[in-house]
Amino acid sequence: MMNKYIDLVNENLDKFMEVVYPEDIFKSMRYTVLLPGKRLRPVMCLETCRMFGGNIEEAIPAACAIEMLHSQTLIHDDLPCMDNDDFRRGKPTNHKVFGEATAVLAGDALLTFAPQILTKNSKNLGAEKLLKVLEEYFQYAGAYGVIAGQVIDIESEKNYPENPEETLKYIHTHKTADLFKLSVRTGAIIADAHEKYLDIITDFAQKLGFAFQIADDILDETSTFEEMGKTLGKDKQAGKLTYTNLYGLDKAKADLNKLLDDCEKLLADNDLKSEIFDQIIKKIRIA
Amino acid sequence: MMNKYIDLVNENLDKFMEVVYPEDIFKSMRYTVLLPGKRLRPVMCLETCRMFGGNIEEAIPAACAIEMLHSQTLIHDDLPCMDNDDFRRGKPTNHKVFGEATAVLAGDALLTFAPQILTKNSKNLGAEKLLKVLEEYFQYAGAYGVIAGQVIDIESEKNYPENPEETLKYIHTHKTADLFKLSVRTGAIIADAHEKYLDIITDFAQKLGFAFQIADDILDETSTFEEMGKTLGKDKQAGKLTYTNLYGLDKAKADLNKLLDDCEKLLADNDLKSEIFDQIIKKIRIA
Repeated sequence: MMNKYIDLVNENLDKFMEVVYPEDIFKSMRYTVLLPGKRLRPVMCLETCRMFGGNIEEAIPAACAIEMLHSQTLIHDDLPCMDNDDFRRGKPTNHKVFGEATAVLAGDALLTFAPQILTKNSKNLGAEKLLKVLEEYFQYAGAYGVIAGQVIDIESEKNYPENPEETLKYIHTHKTADLFKLSVRTGAIIADAHEKYLDIITDFAQKLGFAFQIADDILDETSTFEEMGKTLGKDKQAGKLTYTNLYGLDKAKADLNKLLDDCEKLLADNDLKSEIFDQIIKKIRIA
Repeated sequence: MMNKYIDLVNENLDKFMEVVYPEDIFKSMRYTVLLPGKRLRPVMCLETCRMFGGNIEEAIPAACAIEMLHSQTLIHDDLPCMDNDDFRRGKPTNHKVFGEATAVLAGDALLTFAPQILTKNSKNLGAEKLLKVLEEYFQYAGAYGVIAGQVIDIESEKNYPENPEETLKYIHTHKTADLFKLSVRTGAIIADAHEKYLDIITDFAQKLGFAFQIADDILDETSTFEEMGKTLGKDKQAGKLTYTNLYGLDKAKADLNKLLDDCEKLLADNDLKSEIFDQIIKKIRIA
């Protein structure tokens, strides 16, 4: 089931991202978007749509748009003026392959290409619902969403914040959980889920995103380049504001698993059944 | 009349761009968007709307969104990895004031903030028309529009192109004329102009944008920093692909004025009367 979703996302990403003139920009966009990945966000979008009785075919363009947006954040986060990373998913980062100028422009292009693909290929949703989906995209992709998280992340690297706990929560909420929220909310809206479920699923995605980021912080410390496909331990070394630097490994693991327990309870309490979300939760757990 | 439009645009840009937490990103966005400028693109949007009998109040959010998009291209074009410019409209460029990381993120934020503002404040257009306007935005803002022009511009700087005339036409069409086209098309769509006028006004904006860029190339050679507010003569020195480097000053001036004559004829032939466009054409002319 998970693999069926991943294949569907990969096929459609490939189909949506045709290389036309000027080829370099499309090649650069494709390079990062099509790097093999877990496709966690589009899978969550499709699965939420299914969970609320929607037709997953209708959610495919939106799911792909969210993966493009996610890739955009990776391309720009890796730039020399940001995190200055050379590897991503085991491959050289976008600017290492295409140069900085093209990498900046590829990220820019993805920010409008994603909603364009969504709009072009979702006409059957009807104008009203499509606008609703676009509004979610604008909210979570921009200055009130993922970019807000990145801004505070960068600032907290320059000056260690006065309220590190609050600041870290803000960063994780926006930099990570916001795209999780966008994914599930979009799936739910496409499936015409009842308004009350939007709040529940948003809460679920917030907790899952938070857990995911704690797991990422833990793995940054305990994992290897081969396992993660990117340079690790930089955060620990830099004394960066991370969950493990702030609370230590043991509390990080305990909090991570508590959040995942809460996620499972949220689904169970609301009679939401999903093998896919069960699997995702299981994968994020760290023993 | 022109000043009334400019004031309206400035007031609304200021109103739409409220500084909230995280303040740095909103301050950085505001910094470039609110630099005093001619507001040529939003003015064209409002005037086209008026010319086709529309209510300009309805076009204000779209006009402001186009100015934000234009500012986004300025912020990223000025980055060290692009044109590496220190001044813009007589002031230090965005990354000189806020740093490179924030400048990249401010540009990113504007790309989704612009359509978000447009969507939030144009509900009275109805979902169908609003979607049409958004589709124009996605088309001209992205990899098929202004970014395509920027990519080829950068590539032609690295390697002088085999077909310089064609390449230059492509760059001017996308990097400059596409935002002009977006401006007039958006105004026309909001005014419910007849389909045939969309083609005419697009042709008009293509010619006007082209003329505008030729004038810019001429002024880059013949003007001063004080007049233009940016470092000049860099293109001449670098042997960059520009209209004046390719055809010489005399032919550039002649072609510029021929294009502006065509613009005037297009309006007259189609019985489109506009003092504002007459003024814009007059301002672009170089004796």
